[in-house]
Amino acid sequence: MYTLFHHPFCPLSRFIRLALGEHGLDLRLVEERSWERRTAFLALNPAGTTPVLVAEGRPPIPGAGVIVEFLDEVHGVEMGDRRLLPQSTAERIEVRRLLSWFNDKFFEEASGPLMTERIYKRFMSEEDGGGPPAMDVIRAANANVRYHLAYIGWLARTRNFLAGDRMTYADLAAAAHLSAIDYLGDVPWIEDEAAKAWYARIKSRPSFRPLLSEWLAGVPASRTYVDLDF
Amino acid sequence: MYTLFHHPFCPLSRFIRLALGEHGLDLRLVEERSWERRTAFLALNPAGTTPVLVAEGRPPIPGAGVIVEFLDEVHGVEMGDRRLLPQSTAERIEVRRLLSWFNDKFFEEASGPLMTERIYKRFMSEEDGGGPPAMDVIRAANANVRYHLAYIGWLARTRNFLAGDRMTYADLAAAAHLSAIDYLGDVPWIEDEAAKAWYARIKSRPSFRPLLSEWLAGVPASRTYVDLDF
Repeated sequence: MYTLFHHPFCPLSRFIRLALGEHGLDLRLVEERSWERRTAFLALNPAGTTPVLVAEGRPPIPGAGVIVEFLDEVHGVEMGDRRLLPQSTAERIEVRRLLSWFNDKFFEEASGPLMTERIYKRFMSEEDGGGPPAMDVIRAANANVRYHLAYIGWLARTRNFLAGDRMTYADLAAAAHLSAIDYLGDVPWIEDEAAKAWYARIKSRPSFRPLLSEWLAGVPASRTYVDLDF
Repeated sequence: MYTLFHHPFCPLSRFIRLALGEHGLDLRLVEERSWERRTAFLALNPAGTTPVLVAEGRPPIPGAGVIVEFLDEVHGVEMGDRRLLPQSTAERIEVRRLLSWFNDKFFEEASGPLMTERIYKRFMSEEDGGGPPAMDVIRAANANVRYHLAYIGWLARTRNFLAGDRMTYADLAAAAHLSAIDYLGDVPWIEDEAAKAWYARIKSRPSFRPLLSEWLAGVPASRTYVDLDF
């Protein structure tokens, strides 16, 4: 049994929920508002960020990148052909390249600022940085979503899944970030059919269902968020 | 034989040079000015960032995080007791946590902005973002160096090396970032004796020598940069 300190709209936490779901591992969720900088949470992760995975008898595992390497090392082999970080060196390089692409670059340029401006700021005190959203930040992030969507579409037209023939952590990461933005209606699906078709496949997986049931008081989900034929 | 696309003052590239040095692997260096966004370089790494490691018959390996996992997987076992990502799960979590701490957080808050403002901008055209350094950015980064140095000092007082009993990739990463800043004279060593003593140990390793011989025309190194008893 694992415990995940997460926020329902933290894209990196969503990625780890999808990964644990695909591994078939049981999970207890604890919502963490990282901007409150709780002392007990900082003891789990001095960087103060979500997600953090906790398992009995192990040190806390902070950050999506560290968690995913842990999951592969401890639970990867038992996945057999469905291993989410495939065995060959070339495939591992490509999956990790895309994990960094989505969890670092896409997060920094798009999903991170959108969540901060449009969701987290509603819950932050003024002292923590709360207040009205910065429209220029949102506009820049939305422009970045478009070029990232085009890149996802290009990958999806070139390959069966984003990193190659089979579904990997790279697909889960990309879909996790997009799902958080999609809740807000900020993904211009109409611009890329291949990206949309790929996302529909990932979205229909059972591991995705818990994400689709996350609703935020005061911020209604976009019309198509839950719809599998969006 | 490996080829590394790097910049002599890119802290992440410096980390990979130290890692390859500790592994005893031969290396050919190609200087890349990532801000020029060369088409051939973008083909190696669509993210357009250094470092990128290239080996015959393998796909290019972009980014310090992906490279270090590759090095451990392909060359880790032959290191025996000197393996830089130790074998136990708990140690691997701690080394990876600190890798992310230095390569993501420290880079974003301190070494990245300092290199951009104080070094890269000298070589950038106006169109690429060149020009005089932004003093407010430098001041904020220097303040961050101080709290990071205190954290390194705390780790060094608690343990033999930053992640535990033995030297790991975490020590190399931390030292790589500090070395780039130290060239500029921006590390207040006087504030933390334990951090300084730990850095002196890493700095005296043979793998470090190539970094200490990097000199930049027009930007003299700080008085203590090369000195092993700084």
